Amino acid sequence: MSELCDFGLIGLAVMGENLALNVESRGYRVAVFNRTTSKVDDLMAGRAKGKQFVGCHSLEDLVSSLKTPRQVMMMVKAGPAVDDLIETLIPLLSPGDILIDGGNTFYADTERRTKYVESKGLLYCGTGVSGGEEGALLGPSMMPGGSEAAWPHVKPIFQAIAAKVGPNDDIPCCEWVGPRGAGHYVKMVHNGIEYGDMQMICEAYFLLTEGLGLSNEELYDVFEDWYQGELNSYLIEITRDIFSVMDDDGGYLVDKIMDRAGAKGTGKWMSQLALDLGVPSTLVTEAVYARCLSAMKEARVRASKVLSGPNPKYSGDKTNFIEQIRDALYASKICSYAQGFVQMQAAAIEHDWPLNFGDCAMLWRGGCIIRAVFLDRIKEAFDADPKLENLLLAPYFQEAVERSQDGWRHVVASAAQLGIPTPAFSAALAYYDGYRRERLPANLLQAQRDYFGAHTFERLDKPGTFHAEWIQLRKKPKQ
Amino acid sequence: MSELCDFGLIGLAVMGENLALNVESRGYRVAVFNRTTSKVDDLMAGRAKGKQFVGCHSLEDLVSSLKTPRQVMMMVKAGPAVDDLIETLIPLLSPGDILIDGGNTFYADTERRTKYVESKGLLYCGTGVSGGEEGALLGPSMMPGGSEAAWPHVKPIFQAIAAKVGPNDDIPCCEWVGPRGAGHYVKMVHNGIEYGDMQMICEAYFLLTEGLGLSNEELYDVFEDWYQGELNSYLIEITRDIFSVMDDDGGYLVDKIMDRAGAKGTGKWMSQLALDLGVPSTLVTEAVYARCLSAMKEARVRASKVLSGPNPKYSGDKTNFIEQIRDALYASKICSYAQGFVQMQAAAIEHDWPLNFGDCAMLWRGGCIIRAVFLDRIKEAFDADPKLENLLLAPYFQEAVERSQDGWRHVVASAAQLGIPTPAFSAALAYYDGYRRERLPANLLQAQRDYFGAHTFERLDKPGTFHAEWIQLRKKPKQ
Repeated sequence: MSELCDFGLIGLAVMGENLALNVESRGYRVAVFNRTTSKVDDLMAGRAKGKQFVGCHSLEDLVSSLKTPRQVMMMVKAGPAVDDLIETLIPLLSPGDILIDGGNTFYADTERRTKYVESKGLLYCGTGVSGGEEGALLGPSMMPGGSEAAWPHVKPIFQAIAAKVGPNDDIPCCEWVGPRGAGHYVKMVHNGIEYGDMQMICEAYFLLTEGLGLSNEELYDVFEDWYQGELNSYLIEITRDIFSVMDDDGGYLVDKIMDRAGAKGTGKWMSQLALDLGVPSTLVTEAVYARCLSAMKEARVRASKVLSGPNPKYSGDKTNFIEQIRDALYASKICSYAQGFVQMQAAAIEHDWPLNFGDCAMLWRGGCIIRAVFLDRIKEAFDADPKLENLLLAPYFQEAVERSQDGWRHVVASAAQLGIPTPAFSAALAYYDGYRRERLPANLLQAQRDYFGAHTFERLDKPGTFHAEWIQLRKKPKQ
Repeated sequence: MSELCDFGLIGLAVMGENLALNVESRGYRVAVFNRTTSKVDDLMAGRAKGKQFVGCHSLEDLVSSLKTPRQVMMMVKAGPAVDDLIETLIPLLSPGDILIDGGNTFYADTERRTKYVESKGLLYCGTGVSGGEEGALLGPSMMPGGSEAAWPHVKPIFQAIAAKVGPNDDIPCCEWVGPRGAGHYVKMVHNGIEYGDMQMICEAYFLLTEGLGLSNEELYDVFEDWYQGELNSYLIEITRDIFSVMDDDGGYLVDKIMDRAGAKGTGKWMSQLALDLGVPSTLVTEAVYARCLSAMKEARVRASKVLSGPNPKYSGDKTNFIEQIRDALYASKICSYAQGFVQMQAAAIEHDWPLNFGDCAMLWRGGCIIRAVFLDRIKEAFDADPKLENLLLAPYFQEAVERSQDGWRHVVASAAQLGIPTPAFSAALAYYDGYRRERLPANLLQAQRDYFGAHTFERLDKPGTFHAEWIQLRKKPKQ
C-alpha cells in the first residue's frame, strides 16, 4: 500500500471535487470516495491525474487510506444523507478521528450530530464553506465549529486552503467559530446577509432603471464608480460585470433573464430563527419575501393589468439621485449587517457559544460572496469593543449613517411617491428610526391588549404590572 | 343521579369558565371539571349557583354526567397538557364521542391529534375561539375544524354561543372551517391579522402625535371620526376609548404605559409558516418585528443618545395629513388582509383543506378582536368570485386602494423624511408596488446567482434553463 493520506473527502459533486483539488494543491495527499464510484474514476483519470490523490471505491478503502487521527470531510447533500453516512462511518473509524461536514447544514442538525459523534468517541466538525465553485477550488471562506479538540488537527489544512486577506495576503478566512452548530449558524447568517445585499442591489437597480431610465452602459459606470468607494465588494463587482454581458441574440443578457428568483432556504431559516429569538432581522426577511413575490410571476402579470400606480420617472436631478441611491444602499447595508450581528449575539447567548464577532467579520473578508472592504470596519468595531451591542453604535458606522441619512430618506420617500418597491431600503430605515427612539408607540398597543384581553401593562413611572378597567373608565361615546 | 348534561368543559381558567357560563345561558346543561377541584366548587358556589351546572371532581364523573355522543371541550394550556388530557380521556369515552380543543393550539398539533383521536374511534374538533373574556361569555367568534362527522353534533351549541351578526343579528360567527387543523390555522391567521391591525394603528398614532403633536383629546376625536367611516372596527373603537381614560395620578393613562409590547406567539407562527409556504405575509412579520424592537427598551434608550434623526414635526396642512394617514391605514389594512387570505389559500392547497374564504371573513365579522364592517366587503368579494386570487383584485378593494394611494404614498414618504418609523405602512406599500409589477428586478438577482453559483436562470423569450459564462463574457475592467 502506498503512503497514507492526510485528508479524506466523500462526495465528489462540484464543491467536493474542487475542495479536494484545493487541499491537494497545498501539498497534502487526499483520499476521495463517491457513492457512484465512476465519479472517482473520472476524477482520477481527469483533473486529479498525476496528483497526490488516492481514489477509493469503498468507505473502508477511504478510511484505511488515512493517517490517524483521520480527517474525513463529508460533502454530501444536507439532511438525512449526512446521518446515514455518519452511521456507516462510525464503526469504521477509531477514537479521536474527525468527521467534518462541509455542507449547507441546518445548525441544529450539527448541534445534535456533534453530541452524538462525540458520544461515540470521535470528534465532529460542522464547517460552513462559502465561495461557490471557484472559492472551493482557490480559497473559500470557512466557518468551522463543533468539537473544539478537532481544531488543532484540522487547522493546518483548513487554513491552508482558505482564502487569504490582509496587506500581505496571509490572514486566512478560517478561524474556529465555536462549539457544536456555531459554524453552521454563522454560515447561515452569512447567507442571510447575502440575501439582503442582493435585494438591496436590486432595489438600487430598479430605481436607476425605472426612476432614471439608465441604460446598461450607464449602469456599468455607476456600479464601477460604487466599486471604487466604500461599497467596494464582490457583489458590486459582479453586478457591474453583469451589465456588460451581451446575449447571443443581441442586446444585453440581463434584460432577457426571467425576473423570478429562486432560493435555497438559508435566508428563510435565518428569518424563522430571528422570530424565535425575538430579534428584528427585518432585512433578510424582506429579502426572502421579495424573492417570494418575484416568484409569483404569472400572478404579477395578471395584477399588473388591474392595479394602478404613479409614473415612475424621477423628475429631479439625475446625478444627485444616483448619489442618494448610493447613500441608501450604504446605510441600508449597515443596518442589515447590524441586524445579522445582533442575531448572532442573541444566538450565542441562547446556545452558549463564545463567539468572537470580530473574527466572524474577518472570516467573510475573503473567499465568500459577501466579501467586502466594509468588513474590516466591522472587525475594527468589535476589536475596539468586543461587547458592542449594535454596529450602528460604533463611531465609524454611526457617522456613516449620519452622513448618508438625508440621501437615504430622500430615496425611500421618492420610491414611495414613484411607486417603485424598495422593501429592504424602507425596512432598514424603519429599523433605524425605531431603534434610535427612546419612545415607540407600543404603549398604545399594550393599552389595546389590556383592554381586550386583560394582558396587563407596565408603567413608565413605577415598577409592577397593572391592569385597568378600560370600559368602566372610558368616556361614554355619544349614541 | 340527576339529568345528564349536554356539554362537558374541562379547565376553568377565565376563558373556560366564561364559555361554560355562555353554554349554560343558552339553555344547555353543562358539566365542568378542573384539575384543581376547588375551582369547581368556587364556580358552583359562585357564578354557577342556581344554574344548570354539574360540578365534577374527576374526569370519570364528568364523562358519566354527559349524554352520548359526549361533547367534551378542553380549555387547558396549549401544548403537552392537551396530549396528556387526551390520553386520560380516551379510555373513558365511547365510540363517536367528541373531544373539542378550544385553546390557542398550533394547527399542526391539531392535524396530528385529529388523526390520532379518530384512530381510537372518537371524533376530534380543534376550534379557534376569539374574543377574549367578554367574547367567551357573551359570544365569541368560533373557528371549528377537525372530524367532519363531529360538526352536526357540536353545531347547535357552538352556533348558539357564538357572536351573531347581520341585519337581524341572526348569522352566527361560527361555521365549519375544514378538516383536521384548519380551524386552528384560520384562528392563527386571525391573530396575525390582529397583529397587523394593531401595529398599523400604532403607526397612525405615532404620526399623529410625533408628526402633528395631537393631544389625547384630539386623538379621541380623530379615532371617533374614523370609527364612523370605512375603518369602523372594534380596534378603532377601543383605541378611541383608550384616549379618554385618565390615570389616578392625573393625566392620561396611555401616556404612562411602558412602550414595550408583549406577544403570545401566534403572529410569529404565522410568519414562520408564510416563509415555509413562500407567500409574502410581510405585514404580520413587520408587526412581530416591531414588537421585538419595542421590547428592547433599554437598548433603545441607549441608542437614542447616540443616533440622530430629523425633526419629526410635519410642516404641511394638518387636516389634510390626518386624512392622508387615514388613507394609509385603510390601504395598508387592505394589503394586510389580502396577504392573510393568500396565506390561507396557500395553506389550504398544502394541507388539502377545502376552505371557504367568504365564510372565514364572516367568522370574524363579530365576537373577535378584528371584527369590522370591512369584513362584509371581503365576504362579498369571495361570494362574487370564490377563487379570487387576491383581495386587491376585487373591484371594491382595487378602487379603495386607487382612491387612497396618493395619501398613502404621501404618508410613507413623509414618515421617511420625518424619521417616524412606519414599518407596516411601508411594507404594505412595497407589497402593493411589487405585486402590481409585471417586471421586478429579480432578473439581476438571478444573474448574480448564476454568476457566483451557477444556479442557472430562465429567460423571458424562450423556455428552458440557462447558464452563462459571465466571467468569460464580461467586459474586462480597467486595471
